Amino acid sequence: MIARGTPGFSGADLENLVNEAALMAARIGKKVVELVDFEQAKDKVLMGAERRSMVLSDVEKRTTAYHEAGHALVGKFMPGTDPIHKVTIIPRGMALGVTQTLPREDRLNLSRDKAENNISFLMGGRIAEELILNQKTTGAGNDIERATEIARRMVCEWGMSDILGPLTFGKKEEQIFLGREISQHRDYSEQTAQTIDREIRDIVERNYQRAREILVNKTQILHDLAQALLEYETLDGEEVDRIVRGEKIVRVKKTDSEPPTAETPVAVEESKDSKTPFRGGAAPAPA
Amino acid sequence: MIARGTPGFSGADLENLVNEAALMAARIGKKVVELVDFEQAKDKVLMGAERRSMVLSDVEKRTTAYHEAGHALVGKFMPGTDPIHKVTIIPRGMALGVTQTLPREDRLNLSRDKAENNISFLMGGRIAEELILNQKTTGAGNDIERATEIARRMVCEWGMSDILGPLTFGKKEEQIFLGREISQHRDYSEQTAQTIDREIRDIVERNYQRAREILVNKTQILHDLAQALLEYETLDGEEVDRIVRGEKIVRVKKTDSEPPTAETPVAVEESKDSKTPFRGGAAPAPA
Amino acid sequence: MIARGTPGFSGADLENLVNEAALMAARIGKKVVELVDFEQAKDKVLMGAERRSMVLSDVEKRTTAYHEAGHALVGKFMPGTDPIHKVTIIPRGMALGVTQTLPREDRLNLSRDKAENNISFLMGGRIAEELILNQKTTGAGNDIERATEIARRMVCEWGMSDILGPLTFGKKEEQIFLGREISQHRDYSEQTAQTIDREIRDIVERNYQRAREILVNKTQILHDLAQALLEYETLDGEEVDRIVRGEKIVRVKKTDSEPPTAETPVAVEESKDSKTPFRGGAAPAPA
Amino acid sequence: MIARGTPGFSGADLENLVNEAALMAARIGKKVVELVDFEQAKDKVLMGAERRSMVLSDVEKRTTAYHEAGHALVGKFMPGTDPIHKVTIIPRGMALGVTQTLPREDRLNLSRDKAENNISFLMGGRIAEELILNQKTTGAGNDIERATEIARRMVCEWGMSDILGPLTFGKKEEQIFLGREISQHRDYSEQTAQTIDREIRDIVERNYQRAREILVNKTQILHDLAQALLEYETLDGEEVDRIVRGEKIVRVKKTDSEPPTAETPVAVEESKDSKTPFRGGAAPAPA
Amino acid sequence: MIARGTPGFSGADLENLVNEAALMAARIGKKVVELVDFEQAKDKVLMGAERRSMVLSDVEKRTTAYHEAGHALVGKFMPGTDPIHKVTIIPRGMALGVTQTLPREDRLNLSRDKAENNISFLMGGRIAEELILNQKTTGAGNDIERATEIARRMVCEWGMSDILGPLTFGKKEEQIFLGREISQHRDYSEQTAQTIDREIRDIVERNYQRAREILVNKTQILHDLAQALLEYETLDGEEVDRIVRGEKIVRVKKTDSEPPTAETPVAVEESKDSKTPFRGGAAPAPA
Amino acid sequence: MIARGTPGFSGADLENLVNEAALMAARIGKKVVELVDFEQAKDKVLMGAERRSMVLSDVEKRTTAYHEAGHALVGKFMPGTDPIHKVTIIPRGMALGVTQTLPREDRLNLSRDKAENNISFLMGGRIAEELILNQKTTGAGNDIERATEIARRMVCEWGMSDILGPLTFGKKEEQIFLGREISQHRDYSEQTAQTIDREIRDIVERNYQRAREILVNKTQILHDLAQALLEYETLDGEEVDRIVRGEKIVRVKKTDSEPPTAETPVAVEESKDSKTPFRGGAAPAPA
Repeated sequence: MIARGTPGFSGADLENLVNEAALMAARIGKKVVELVDFEQAKDKVLMGAERRSMVLSDVEKRTTAYHEAGHALVGKFMPGTDPIHKVTIIPRGMALGVTQTLPREDRLNLSRDKAENNISFLMGGRIAEELILNQKTTGAGNDIERATEIARRMVCEWGMSDILGPLTFGKKEEQIFLGREISQHRDYSEQTAQTIDREIRDIVERNYQRAREILVNKTQILHDLAQALLEYETLDGEEVDRIVRGEKIVRVKKTDSEPPTAETPVAVEESKDSKTPFRGGAAPAPA
Repeated sequence: MIARGTPGFSGADLENLVNEAALMAARIGKKVVELVDFEQAKDKVLMGAERRSMVLSDVEKRTTAYHEAGHALVGKFMPGTDPIHKVTIIPRGMALGVTQTLPREDRLNLSRDKAENNISFLMGGRIAEELILNQKTTGAGNDIERATEIARRMVCEWGMSDILGPLTFGKKEEQIFLGREISQHRDYSEQTAQTIDREIRDIVERNYQRAREILVNKTQILHDLAQALLEYETLDGEEVDRIVRGEKIVRVKKTDSEPPTAETPVAVEESKDSKTPFRGGAAPAPA
Repeated sequence: MIARGTPGFSGADLENLVNEAALMAARIGKKVVELVDFEQAKDKVLMGAERRSMVLSDVEKRTTAYHEAGHALVGKFMPGTDPIHKVTIIPRGMALGVTQTLPREDRLNLSRDKAENNISFLMGGRIAEELILNQKTTGAGNDIERATEIARRMVCEWGMSDILGPLTFGKKEEQIFLGREISQHRDYSEQTAQTIDREIRDIVERNYQRAREILVNKTQILHDLAQALLEYETLDGEEVDRIVRGEKIVRVKKTDSEPPTAETPVAVEESKDSKTPFRGGAAPAPA
Repeated sequence: MIARGTPGFSGADLENLVNEAALMAARIGKKVVELVDFEQAKDKVLMGAERRSMVLSDVEKRTTAYHEAGHALVGKFMPGTDPIHKVTIIPRGMALGVTQTLPREDRLNLSRDKAENNISFLMGGRIAEELILNQKTTGAGNDIERATEIARRMVCEWGMSDILGPLTFGKKEEQIFLGREISQHRDYSEQTAQTIDREIRDIVERNYQRAREILVNKTQILHDLAQALLEYETLDGEEVDRIVRGEKIVRVKKTDSEPPTAETPVAVEESKDSKTPFRGGAAPAPA
Repeated sequence: MIARGTPGFSGADLENLVNEAALMAARIGKKVVELVDFEQAKDKVLMGAERRSMVLSDVEKRTTAYHEAGHALVGKFMPGTDPIHKVTIIPRGMALGVTQTLPREDRLNLSRDKAENNISFLMGGRIAEELILNQKTTGAGNDIERATEIARRMVCEWGMSDILGPLTFGKKEEQIFLGREISQHRDYSEQTAQTIDREIRDIVERNYQRAREILVNKTQILHDLAQALLEYETLDGEEVDRIVRGEKIVRVKKTDSEPPTAETPVAVEESKDSKTPFRGGAAPAPA
Repeated sequence: MIARGTPGFSGADLENLVNEAALMAARIGKKVVELVDFEQAKDKVLMGAERRSMVLSDVEKRTTAYHEAGHALVGKFMPGTDPIHKVTIIPRGMALGVTQTLPREDRLNLSRDKAENNISFLMGGRIAEELILNQKTTGAGNDIERATEIARRMVCEWGMSDILGPLTFGKKEEQIFLGREISQHRDYSEQTAQTIDREIRDIVERNYQRAREILVNKTQILHDLAQALLEYETLDGEEVDRIVRGEKIVRVKKTDSEPPTAETPVAVEESKDSKTPFRGGAAPAPA
């Protein structure tokens, strides 16, 4: 179950995760390592250590809450998106908050519809900030980068643009000094480059509009979700469903440890090189 | 016979293949290494180990079945294409499925017609998905990359474009650090780059249409082939022929080991650098 | 308190700072290290050693005084800018003068408004020189570089341009020889490059005009601030406020050590590679 | 005489050739090394070992025969071309066949006429395939690459274009890691690049047409030459002359060793990096 | 005083200079090192050894004399330029002659006016040659390179172009192999590149015209200065002033050692990489 | 005298030359090293060893004779060109022939007129071949490369183009791996690149026409010079003058050693990287 929840992990990665879980369990005096410990270890390995000591202003917390609520709400109402696994505004690593989804099946096969849904989902955070707080922040930079990357690959690698057709554009080149890929060779004309730019732009814009429509129509739920996040810091999928249905959730406020969450196959895909703090919408992306 | 079935293999590659076959035979208690073992070893060496433990959703299996059936059907009805050797939806390495053809002769000599047929064959998988499942998936990325590469070489290396004439475009440069070729130097103008782009596009589009026509006219056979693949996972050339003729095939379902296949000269050409899972149409390509 | 005043500092950086403070205290015979020593050490670590021995002409001092006064005044009257912490015309490192602001909250979250305010604040020095001294000097080069960089990231990384939309432009590439990032790969067309140029230009120009308006309307305060800087060399935030309110400040002239300043969370962001002496407007910039 | 037949060979290359010849003679029990052994050794060193074991389909042999006959015929009827030394369809190294010419004098001095003749000669193979077999194959890729290279140097290095004039274009740069030249720096405008492209295209096209005219007018001789090649595999210059004059040649069919050929100054210029099998027209090219 | 005369010198550079001065003094039997020795040492360190043994034709001497006289005269009559320190036509290092100015104050602060004056001053040498000798020589290559560099930085780094505004253009990149900066990354569009080109051109042209006007109006003084240089080889600032006022100077001809010159803060800024002999106009340039 | 004849030589180069001369003298049994030995050594060091064993066809010799005669004649009648030192058609190194000039003065100072004369002189060889032999050969490639380089530097480094003005274009960059300069960074727009191309083209064309005019008007002398070269292989300056005046020269034919030539300051500037045999016009070029 743990292995399925960590797609792309090598055996060594999993061993590392198990060690981490054992250490965590031991630190709080447990005799056995439980699922909740693995869940904690997985979050730490995937996204970095929790940073509860981080001092965040109320403004920043509010921004993060609406940002993550935006992701969650788009994920909830976009047909064909994976169910929400967890939403949190507890900072981890460079992320000020994260919305995790639960892939229903293996991620070997990304269709055009699903790729576009992912882009909508990634746009949700920025749009929520714009609608409610009337601002654009740097926190959406990571979402935007990932959405652009998906749109670019749709056009240039996966042949999903009707205008550019079933061709690939650009040639990957590896310069193996220390095992890193270095450049995407541009082997097409300026004219083609303009068409590619336009297609990428259209794909992102189209899905921005789809996400915006959802959030404009569900503003009240957006407020409710953000409020709940400010109150409880972390919500699991069931709690998100409850709020969406207009129900209340009952829990102890600001728990020190997160509620055990048993669902496992969680897709979290962080851009590892990010150095700007961001609010993350975690969407599955093919490697 | 084994040697002819592995074009491009060095003596060391063949030795490796023979060892692999011996190990496989020994593992199931055989005293002698049979042709079927060599066949298995060849597939493993060419495409990676079988991944039967891989959990695939029904949706993904269905997509793969139609994708491979698309390749096989185009290969079957495109005049001058090599006969089908094997079609399978058992994952191997990064491939979710593969359609192998059987080159009728040595591959030393690729004519323009044959190059275009290869592109049509490579398009078959994507088109089948579009026609039947009304979707475009990332699984065709590898096919598209290879088709684009063939079209590019037709125009830029082999002088097969009437518009650009019997010239080469771009100069290969090798930067020998670790023996890898690094860049294709662009030594022509933007104007020429546009003509090259247009020609490559035209070649791919033309052959996309040729493949589409076949699949549109043979939709029933496409369904039959995909169904057979879902039922038996692997079909040999004769079984494909049977289905194309509208006959039934009789076999035990989901065998643990593939049926022995004696045909040998099989052309499988994988893009080694692919990291996205794909469904493969295996077409001969000159190195 | 010290830690909060040095955002981005690692533990090793802080240890270095504490050592520096201890050395400074010891050098003037102190038995204990006081807050004022830490403040001095922080300035030295952030901006380099004081260079009181540096011979500056009266013309240069006057230019620096108006430059820093320009920063301070824009910072004071631009809504939403952080309060002024300190303004000084004592050279440190490559800086001939510095205006420090006091971030009200953590800098994890830079909104579009705030980013534009920063650009205005950075423009303040150049504009003051233009208005009062009718000149443009190289001393503003560092401000201009940082303002351009913020504008570029707004457009290309943070999706803050309405015209270019929520996309990223350009792909960072790292060539890891000695751990340095080398190039920002241009993966867009010339047409998009022109739009990006225009957007960056518009953002900088717009905020230049906003800053200019403030300084044109408050010319008398600008003169007062510059005069006070020429008289006292360093002003703390309270003294700046006094001058802005038209009040006098009472202090010993040209003190050998700066007045102790207790406020701590100071944002100073120097461009480390600068080799041209400059007058700095210190504005918070996300890493 | 051997030395004159191997232009560009260093002393070490010649020593290598002599050793090879001695080994070949010894292998068949000879006591002395004869000219025929040196001839064999030269072919092996220049083009790789004979590959008689290579299985070629009849279609491929026929294609090769017409390809080489095309080279030979253009070489025969193009005024000012060197006489034919040997034509063969026995594969050697990557070459499926070769037509060797016999330079009448040292190759120190390539005139524009001669350079254009070379291009025509290189086009002969492709044109023969087009005329008789109605196809374009990858086998002409090497010819096309070399023809383009000669045309490019005529325009960019040797000042032979009336439109671009007596100037050089592009600056060679060597990056000496392992002694290889890496890039041809483009130091001219896009406009000039377009003119260069057009000139190169014109030169190649013009000489394609000249070669085509010869082959169209001598179709019967083309058939005769190709038939003779299919029958005898290798023809020497005299035999080619005989066929051109409409006479018969009398010889044992498919000899195991080639007939001794005494002519020596043979120009064979292979593109060493070629990895695609090709049919070669061997024309003298200045280094 | 020596330290002030060598801006940009490190402690090690100064130590080197002092050693050089001591050696020079010792070589001619002095017991103490005098100011004149430091002056000589400084010239040697800044510009290379005197090359009195160099054989120069009369034409070359005359060209150099007018070139340096042109620099000096523009420097004299351009408002706001630093006073002339020394003019010489004795070759040193790669320089056939040098005109040194005496910066009135520290060079920390270069205004637009001053930057333009520097460009005019650098143009003076070429213009004098054109006016009097009706020729353009390679000797002005270094002046032109430096003038272009100042104009480029005005536009691209210092925000001094009204048309391009207070932005920076181009991103410096360092590739630290052996500590050298390698490339100025072009991160702007072709359109912006054209505007930059035009602005740089305008700045240089404008100041060329300003310098030309001075020299056209003072042709007689130009002749007088050049004659004096041919007679005395080196002139100090006072002697230049005398000639400008139309007075005579009285001195021994062609002295073996230069007259002691006590002024110290001399700005000489050579382009270190120059390999073409040049005649220098020494103008202060910010690093 | 030897030192003056080898501009650009370091002390080590001169030592090498002296050793070479001593060896040559010793080899023919001389007791003392004479001027003629130094002359021989200088030619060998500058241009490589004589290659008298090289077999040249009569056509090639004739081509070389007219090529060198063309250089010499242009050099003779172009006002302001240095006198001819020696013309030879004895191959040395990669050069099939050489025309050496005798710089009248140090080459520190190249004026625009002189630079253009050099280009005319370099064109002389190609034009003579065109006029008399009605051909263009690769032998002029080196001349053309050097003429283009001079024209490029006139425009881009020395500010000698009236249209582009007194600016430099392109930034040299050195990538110090093994001490080689690698690239000329293009830091200007496409528009400027077009103007640069046009200017370089105009300069070369203008001087091609000037040289052509001389050769068209002096065709008889051209024939006489070429005949004399074919007869005597090497002509000294005086002999060239004689032929130009229509007089006969009296000498033993085809001497084994060249006649002693006492003139020393000879400017020979070979492109060291040339690998194509060429006929050289040796013109002084600034480093």
